Amino acid sequence: MKSIDPTHLRQMSAAEVRGLIRSGALDAPTAGMADGFVQANLAIVPRAFAGDFLEFCKANPKPCPLLGVSEPGAVDIPNVAADLDIRTDVCGYKIFKDGVAVERVRDLTQVWRDDLVTFVLGCSFSFEHALRDAGLPVRHIDCGCNVPMYKTGLATVPRGRFAGPLVVSMRPFTPADAIRAICLSDKMPLAHGAPVHFGDPAAIGIRDIAAPEFGDAVPIGAGEVPVFWACGVTPQAVLEKAALPFAIAHDPGHMLITDIRNAAITDGSVAGVEFCVS
Amino acid sequence: MKSIDPTHLRQMSAAEVRGLIRSGALDAPTAGMADGFVQANLAIVPRAFAGDFLEFCKANPKPCPLLGVSEPGAVDIPNVAADLDIRTDVCGYKIFKDGVAVERVRDLTQVWRDDLVTFVLGCSFSFEHALRDAGLPVRHIDCGCNVPMYKTGLATVPRGRFAGPLVVSMRPFTPADAIRAICLSDKMPLAHGAPVHFGDPAAIGIRDIAAPEFGDAVPIGAGEVPVFWACGVTPQAVLEKAALPFAIAHDPGHMLITDIRNAAITDGSVAGVEFCVS
Repeated sequence: MKSIDPTHLRQMSAAEVRGLIRSGALDAPTAGMADGFVQANLAIVPRAFAGDFLEFCKANPKPCPLLGVSEPGAVDIPNVAADLDIRTDVCGYKIFKDGVAVERVRDLTQVWRDDLVTFVLGCSFSFEHALRDAGLPVRHIDCGCNVPMYKTGLATVPRGRFAGPLVVSMRPFTPADAIRAICLSDKMPLAHGAPVHFGDPAAIGIRDIAAPEFGDAVPIGAGEVPVFWACGVTPQAVLEKAALPFAIAHDPGHMLITDIRNAAITDGSVAGVEFCVS
Repeated sequence: MKSIDPTHLRQMSAAEVRGLIRSGALDAPTAGMADGFVQANLAIVPRAFAGDFLEFCKANPKPCPLLGVSEPGAVDIPNVAADLDIRTDVCGYKIFKDGVAVERVRDLTQVWRDDLVTFVLGCSFSFEHALRDAGLPVRHIDCGCNVPMYKTGLATVPRGRFAGPLVVSMRPFTPADAIRAICLSDKMPLAHGAPVHFGDPAAIGIRDIAAPEFGDAVPIGAGEVPVFWACGVTPQAVLEKAALPFAIAHDPGHMLITDIRNAAITDGSVAGVEFCVS
């Protein structure tokens, strides 16, 4: 595979990047690609569990903001991306058996089943894009590392066999910048919305701010406070805990790049879609 | 003057309460009256200073959110209230000479001049109403006292002879409630908008959180943080510092009750009006 210029990838449309991924020419974390398009978390579960998982997402919109749900067995989701083939258009998938991640695969063609339902969930890339557009520094991006993520003592609202602790991501800000970040992210409920907490990590059951359960620790400056957002890792942790016989998620960082514009989830154009599982 | 049932005052329209004030039947702090209508701060200055004061308000929209500006000498402001007579429809005014409050008067008929320009500025009552509607506790209301207000080390943006420190009001919340309060008040830029700071009072030059320069101290509970909003006392402090030969403000707490609905400044119906001084 020859390497592709990051600037070129940034300027491509979502459909162009998905085409490269489908062709096998691209296998890399998708942060920064197809600038301005919404990237998304994936959760794929058998139809028998899809109704409960849908209810779980609706009951927990901050960690699980619903952008789209497929028909059972369908590999396309027209309101999320044109000509989508969910089996090939993401460059890394994790296969779960009985709640354990048993394999990372490059495409799903060999494992696809006609009872699988795909859930497309919003991701923090969208609001980070908005924060940076507004001139706010995003620490982990400036540090060139992954965002720090923590398991909390806050419980999600359980539905069926789906339950578990909320996972949060953390970005440090001065109080004045934190207020701006809170207001900007509040305008993007489909990208996790406003934070759930700021300040004392122990107040939400985080044991050690320097030791995130996922991602990388980042420095918190003097006069800064850590701000905590509901995180898209939550549904993956919930999927694992639910121990379904079979389930699929994206490989973290390797997101589905949708045709939805960041601007559309800020101005509300795609908000309020009602989903059901047929 | 016979006393009027507070529940009755709450249920009255803005026009009905203004009528009572104009008739001399009511002279009391207006908090809680004409529920759902926007109450406002007043600043009245001679035309010679009105252009600079308008520019000051535009440059400092958080402490000085402009709801309306009169024509010079006019006692009505049609976009703020029907049949308004600004000389009689507020139940207490402060007269400033050379920057010093020399008198509190019940009406302005004796001191009115045909070069006076009235500025109507949004007030925190509107966003406090929204916070309480959302189930958030507002400490000073629950304590039955005035909101604590502090002079800060933050400077307003100077215009002409108008300059000075930002004055802030403080309400304590848990972090989760603070996030909700930030998001709700952000939707009301004509009622001071989102806060300017939370947490450490010293970071914005407040010397003693237990000793507000105006209003009353309120307790801050364990696990709560103080949240600071730009305050409508700022323009009064700026007026005093500017030491105009003559100026008028409302007596704090005795607000102009406008015909504008709180809902209208939340959904943006009256946002974005452009004012000029003729």
